[in-house]
Amino acid sequence: MEVAPEHRATLAGYRQLVVDGMLAHLSDGRTSRYLTEYLPVYPAQPGKGLRGALVLAINRAMGGRTDQALPFAIGIELLHNAFLVHDDIIDGSRRRRDAPTLPVRCGTGLALCVGDALALRAVTLLAVAADRQGLPAGQLMAEVERAVRLTLEGEATELGWEREGRVDVAAEDYLAMVLRKTSWYSTILPCRLGLLAARRRPIGERFVTFGALAGAVLQIGDDLSSYTETARQSGKNWGDDVLEGKRSLPVIHFLATAPEGEDRDRVVAHLRGGRRNRRRADAHWFVDLLRQRGSLAQVDRFRLALTREAHIQLAADTVDAVDRASVDFVHAIVDMLAYR
Amino acid sequence: MEVAPEHRATLAGYRQLVVDGMLAHLSDGRTSRYLTEYLPVYPAQPGKGLRGALVLAINRAMGGRTDQALPFAIGIELLHNAFLVHDDIIDGSRRRRDAPTLPVRCGTGLALCVGDALALRAVTLLAVAADRQGLPAGQLMAEVERAVRLTLEGEATELGWEREGRVDVAAEDYLAMVLRKTSWYSTILPCRLGLLAARRRPIGERFVTFGALAGAVLQIGDDLSSYTETARQSGKNWGDDVLEGKRSLPVIHFLATAPEGEDRDRVVAHLRGGRRNRRRADAHWFVDLLRQRGSLAQVDRFRLALTREAHIQLAADTVDAVDRASVDFVHAIVDMLAYR
Repeated sequence: MEVAPEHRATLAGYRQLVVDGMLAHLSDGRTSRYLTEYLPVYPAQPGKGLRGALVLAINRAMGGRTDQALPFAIGIELLHNAFLVHDDIIDGSRRRRDAPTLPVRCGTGLALCVGDALALRAVTLLAVAADRQGLPAGQLMAEVERAVRLTLEGEATELGWEREGRVDVAAEDYLAMVLRKTSWYSTILPCRLGLLAARRRPIGERFVTFGALAGAVLQIGDDLSSYTETARQSGKNWGDDVLEGKRSLPVIHFLATAPEGEDRDRVVAHLRGGRRNRRRADAHWFVDLLRQRGSLAQVDRFRLALTREAHIQLAADTVDAVDRASVDFVHAIVDMLAYR
Repeated sequence: MEVAPEHRATLAGYRQLVVDGMLAHLSDGRTSRYLTEYLPVYPAQPGKGLRGALVLAINRAMGGRTDQALPFAIGIELLHNAFLVHDDIIDGSRRRRDAPTLPVRCGTGLALCVGDALALRAVTLLAVAADRQGLPAGQLMAEVERAVRLTLEGEATELGWEREGRVDVAAEDYLAMVLRKTSWYSTILPCRLGLLAARRRPIGERFVTFGALAGAVLQIGDDLSSYTETARQSGKNWGDDVLEGKRSLPVIHFLATAPEGEDRDRVVAHLRGGRRNRRRADAHWFVDLLRQRGSLAQVDRFRLALTREAHIQLAADTVDAVDRASVDFVHAIVDMLAYR
């Protein structure tokens, strides 16, 4: 499905605003040279900028002014970059966005400090912006705290499954983990910060269900993309999730449906074997087994069902929006997550 | 120099209060099992508890109530534990407080999440406590933000020196680094939080000079302790700083005073060689060279001079104290830092 050019242009415009804001914020010269040098590395190699765009679009949809929401968009993207740095340490990743990762560039120790410093900058920026604008800083920080806490819980849960060699993870467990690891900070928090910046109160649990669905669409899409023929041919990210022993939804479907036998035993042994017993080349037979079992196709259908639900929930959450063009743009973001 | 038994008892009492508070705070059951299991590991193996004791003692000295200051003492010690977890990842340490480190116990990935989660808990606890007690939450969080930022800068600076193979680090550079890495969160922030909890305002830059001196005494003592005969014989921490290529004050003194020649070349090559070219056994000849040059004795004298200055500054900062016994206790803490 094609996303309309005007939505791509809107996304590009929002992304530029946020990237410029991040780099300006990181160049205030207060830090020592050794941190200064590495803080902007990831922010200067931006991804799609979906999180910042969600803040700005929901804010406009709800009648807010972009200059008021911008610090929150910048804060969210800085927080995302902090997570990326720590993720690259955790996963031992060598490349990100066509460049060497920060741990490769400056070592694990400095990279860890850079991630910590980006997170501190992000949280401080969010708190200061809330305070300056007379928003309820306590409520806003509670939102941020909840999102960060759940993200860490989700990450720890996924690492724990791998560490314990668990092969009994159910689809509900996976979705509960993704709700924590991905949805809370990637989609739920951005929407809610946009709402708060637009001075809509009370916000109750608004956008939590939508964000949960959109985040799951994002994460499942990410998981599936590492198994595709395109990934295999380009080599980019190919085999990463297999190497890490990720209990993704296709893997869970395979384990739940494959009969006892050699194929199932081989997958179980791979998942239980620990990282040092896995090879990137294992991805070839592993992904072939998932495909033959129909697990990839089944999860893809599930993802499309989630996408439909996300659209329906978004419509319900935006009935009182004042700018329909921004609502349309958020629908387009959902499609970008789904149809990459 | 012997520290009086009543001061040791006070310290033990404060430590117990803070440790119990940390463990209660970490067992509120909100987090997933995988994080829950590891969050209390370091807090349950407490160190001396100097940071929490400083908060409580300065607070009492200035007329505050212990129950009001306790959340700040708990928050500071949680923050310290978060730094310890990340430090153990950065330094690749295998043992701490007579037990395996967290990265050894649960892997780097989970340990990184545990450190992040402890830091988040600490900062949230500090913010919530300030808010509940009607203290200026913005001012308090600015104090915390400054301390954490400077700590990361100091850590990054020390890692950067090692990474770049710098052998031109001056004593002033070292002291500026220690002010950041150690003093701000270990001594300055605890004193200032104690002051804020006692509702003394305005606090200006009070306790900054005292904390800078006390933190330097603490760090220089730590550095020296890894070079002692006791460390060599016990094997505990022996050679850690040499293995990490730390530019400690004795090393800086050696480089500044040793004539051109084989000994100096050997030290320079060691410092420039990168971690993989160093061995723990290098500590034997390395420390012997520092001792022969008089660098250890010289730095020890400097440390005692700093200790005297810390006492004088503490006296100036506590002229208006209402509880002299607590002031005496803080003087005893300075001596504990100095005469271990």
